[in-house]
Amino acid sequence: MNVLWIMADQLRWDYLSCYGATHIETPNLDWLATRGVRFNRAYVQSPICGPSRMSYYTGRYVRSHGSTWNGFPLRVGEPTLGEHLREIGVKCTLVGKTHMTPDLEGMKRLGIEPEGTIGARVSECGFEVFVRDDGTNHSDYPSRHAEDYDRYLREHGMDGDNPWEEWANTAIGPDGELRSGWVLENAPFAARVPREHSETAWLTTRGIEFMEGQGDQPWLCHLSYIKPHWPYLAPAPYNDMFSAADVPPVNRSDGERRSDHPLMQAWMDMRVSKNFSRDEVRNFVAPVYMGLIRELDDNLGRLFGYLGECGRLDDTMIVFCSDHGDNMGDHWMGEKDLFYDCSARVPLIVYDPRREADATRGTAVERLVEGVDLTPTFVEFFGGQPKPNIIEGLSLQSLLHGQKIPWRDFCVSEYDYATRDARRVVGVDQGNARLTMIFDGRWKYVHVEEMRPLLFDLESDPNELVDLGGDPAFAEQVDRMRGLHFAWTRQHHNRITRTAEEVEAMTDAREPPGILIGYRDRAELESDGRSLPPHARR
Amino acid sequence: MNVLWIMADQLRWDYLSCYGATHIETPNLDWLATRGVRFNRAYVQSPICGPSRMSYYTGRYVRSHGSTWNGFPLRVGEPTLGEHLREIGVKCTLVGKTHMTPDLEGMKRLGIEPEGTIGARVSECGFEVFVRDDGTNHSDYPSRHAEDYDRYLREHGMDGDNPWEEWANTAIGPDGELRSGWVLENAPFAARVPREHSETAWLTTRGIEFMEGQGDQPWLCHLSYIKPHWPYLAPAPYNDMFSAADVPPVNRSDGERRSDHPLMQAWMDMRVSKNFSRDEVRNFVAPVYMGLIRELDDNLGRLFGYLGECGRLDDTMIVFCSDHGDNMGDHWMGEKDLFYDCSARVPLIVYDPRREADATRGTAVERLVEGVDLTPTFVEFFGGQPKPNIIEGLSLQSLLHGQKIPWRDFCVSEYDYATRDARRVVGVDQGNARLTMIFDGRWKYVHVEEMRPLLFDLESDPNELVDLGGDPAFAEQVDRMRGLHFAWTRQHHNRITRTAEEVEAMTDAREPPGILIGYRDRAELESDGRSLPPHARR
Repeated sequence: MNVLWIMADQLRWDYLSCYGATHIETPNLDWLATRGVRFNRAYVQSPICGPSRMSYYTGRYVRSHGSTWNGFPLRVGEPTLGEHLREIGVKCTLVGKTHMTPDLEGMKRLGIEPEGTIGARVSECGFEVFVRDDGTNHSDYPSRHAEDYDRYLREHGMDGDNPWEEWANTAIGPDGELRSGWVLENAPFAARVPREHSETAWLTTRGIEFMEGQGDQPWLCHLSYIKPHWPYLAPAPYNDMFSAADVPPVNRSDGERRSDHPLMQAWMDMRVSKNFSRDEVRNFVAPVYMGLIRELDDNLGRLFGYLGECGRLDDTMIVFCSDHGDNMGDHWMGEKDLFYDCSARVPLIVYDPRREADATRGTAVERLVEGVDLTPTFVEFFGGQPKPNIIEGLSLQSLLHGQKIPWRDFCVSEYDYATRDARRVVGVDQGNARLTMIFDGRWKYVHVEEMRPLLFDLESDPNELVDLGGDPAFAEQVDRMRGLHFAWTRQHHNRITRTAEEVEAMTDAREPPGILIGYRDRAELESDGRSLPPHARR
Repeated sequence: MNVLWIMADQLRWDYLSCYGATHIETPNLDWLATRGVRFNRAYVQSPICGPSRMSYYTGRYVRSHGSTWNGFPLRVGEPTLGEHLREIGVKCTLVGKTHMTPDLEGMKRLGIEPEGTIGARVSECGFEVFVRDDGTNHSDYPSRHAEDYDRYLREHGMDGDNPWEEWANTAIGPDGELRSGWVLENAPFAARVPREHSETAWLTTRGIEFMEGQGDQPWLCHLSYIKPHWPYLAPAPYNDMFSAADVPPVNRSDGERRSDHPLMQAWMDMRVSKNFSRDEVRNFVAPVYMGLIRELDDNLGRLFGYLGECGRLDDTMIVFCSDHGDNMGDHWMGEKDLFYDCSARVPLIVYDPRREADATRGTAVERLVEGVDLTPTFVEFFGGQPKPNIIEGLSLQSLLHGQKIPWRDFCVSEYDYATRDARRVVGVDQGNARLTMIFDGRWKYVHVEEMRPLLFDLESDPNELVDLGGDPAFAEQVDRMRGLHFAWTRQHHNRITRTAEEVEAMTDAREPPGILIGYRDRAELESDGRSLPPHARR
């Protein structure tokens, strides 16, 4: 039994036809959804790449693993999925992106050589790397794999100082001039790289190559795509497969723009928010975003075809998810960040090949699930016991097998905006630039340190256009959500070195062997089933 | 410049004459107090050895370092005082007890050999070990130093299977029979070990020996005594230096015994609590506890004498503290645990040899200080910069130098009773057996998961005999304290891999080099001081 865990980057759940999108067809993901379970309320632990992924890869909340923003190293010693799987004899391999930044200082303190076998795994978030690609010009991740894609491009005649930048992230304009993918107005032009060599195609092929090379040892392959993450540049024909007419209407209100909330105002005032609030910008970016999704779906078709041909569909769990969404102008915002459904809610489709999952094929699950749930799901799939003292997520297995079990009442997502300019605008200390979302399936509450909270009622306001956080009529609801937040915050998040079984055994033993506390005399001690050291009479 | 950091174990603050005790004289500690600053409101981060010490040795709260009870390993990678000091060229050496349990599983995951140079330090909580002695029959700490004291005893003719058990923890009764120190009624008999070879004497001599051997490299010596921790057995003449008549009156009330709080009832019903609630038991244990304190003070006299003779008082900071107190029958309880002042409040005396501290010599400070404050104090003393992203305590240096600076408004202590039988009595899940004390200098609030809180007003009730936690008249006070608890809990406790300076630089840089987000066109990008990659025209 194996696991193929596919992750897209910055993919909105509502841009997939199996999630109800009517403006785009994603037939291959739709096919996967008919074979597996589609989770309708899946939330990531942070609406931004690094922290969200660190939660996926550890099964732990952001406040627990501490890597609260992109480029904040995952502290050395933080147990990862790869380590949990390796303990039970499963290979855990990366093909693509992780956004991992190694804790070089911590490794140095512990004398761990980053280039050694273990050091390399620690540096790569517990994965063995087949190829890595963080989808930018690789300046921000010190990894021996930083140039994997560049090397590939060079092998196919696309060279230069920085082949990714010059080919994957560059288009040719109408006058033959080179246009950068960093500039939004260039989105409609085709990337210089041909579709068969795009990052999406390359990673798909590498994923197939990895699977082809596997023998008897069970494996998990994390096939982790960059797209449809910016830069919004697609190879032909995906660059002009869609037009402005195909783009769904923007989801925003005038009331939002006039919000009395200083942080919301600061966020809407960011340059990227202002640009994405312009119809013109949405109209040339969103079609390309859709093209990139379509390109991904096409490649998944090729991948699923391969799995079918070689019989792998019988023994491979396939999981598809995203690390967060894209605001794409909704709520007067660009990029991701914050906790609107366009950003913090993600698609999650799980195909479980086992017979126990037959009853749930093609169904949707409304339970609140989280990114942290995948690590325990994988451990359990491979026959291991997820360690609840370390892993905070819940295995999805019982849901996949249609079992009725108690489940969480709310899900949590966190965002640390300490490195964002908006923090300076609102004048909050970097240690207090903390946001926490608590969502109970109806009420979405956002704790904002030093400011009033946000509150949305997704039942009466599914588009999250009316912030009730400052409305005295909802003070009771705010209080209730604050209580959930407090209860969650109080929990152990770092008591990882003792299992529940060990704690139970310690309770039984009362004290370590040979230690006897508080006995008045020998008789009392013996009546309690203890005995004196052999040399002593009383 | 050096630091001699002396710690006693289970020593109540109010059993020292410099803290106002009239039933016992501790002239050497009194002398130290006249030379330094006596902190009148020092609290430990947990009223039990292991977690309290892990907070002292890391400068981090219990919920942050995760070692919530004795024998819960300190997770590998948790930065320690030893590591902070080593980075600035200071040796950090242990002479005595730490109660450290190494995270062997975590070390194995990272390929760290426990016997290697770094592995040995990690196993010993960041210290280089001169000698270690955890003061019991060493069954509960896997350390190559577990038998250091046994070896010493054997060298002095005290042998057997377990010399500590048979000599230090055994007395000879009136009929010549061997009596175990584990049994409370044996407390009045003299330990078989003569005073010059007791653990207290041995550790003092080892401490002097360590200091004698030092050269130019600055050092911190953690001279960490076991006593007056149980077993309550003292060598002659300390075993009968005090009598029942010397013991201060017990601090308890009938109202306490009738508490409606289930956890308090469970705690008072523990065997050790019941035994210490008997006058008879207090009357033979407390005098020996006092004798052990007096023995400690005598040995500190020898130590301070040595420091004076060799001129070390001019260049050595001397810190004296305890890891927690001893209920000794107060509040109908034995042992430590919970947060009454007899348990969670400790003596703390700091002698700073520098001229800047001259103005504060012999004074007392009322600020709320915590065990976590020592690590940053030491780092600053040696000229380093305590790292606030890792170290949660505040350096005491400004207080020692009489500077007026803003300070914390409340202190925090935590207790995890998951391994205690009382947890089963009250029927709380092991993950919820969590208590948190918030003390603001007047109000002591104890959050009890799944039950009502405790609340004491130390202004009107300095003996903490009236629990107001269930009194509706104090609901507002409870709310206010709950707010402080929530605010503290929400803080970052694990964002340790990025410094404030790095976060500030990331904010300035907005994105890593080469990444450009959300620019509409080249003009906008350039007006923002950015530039396109060199090959691109627009």
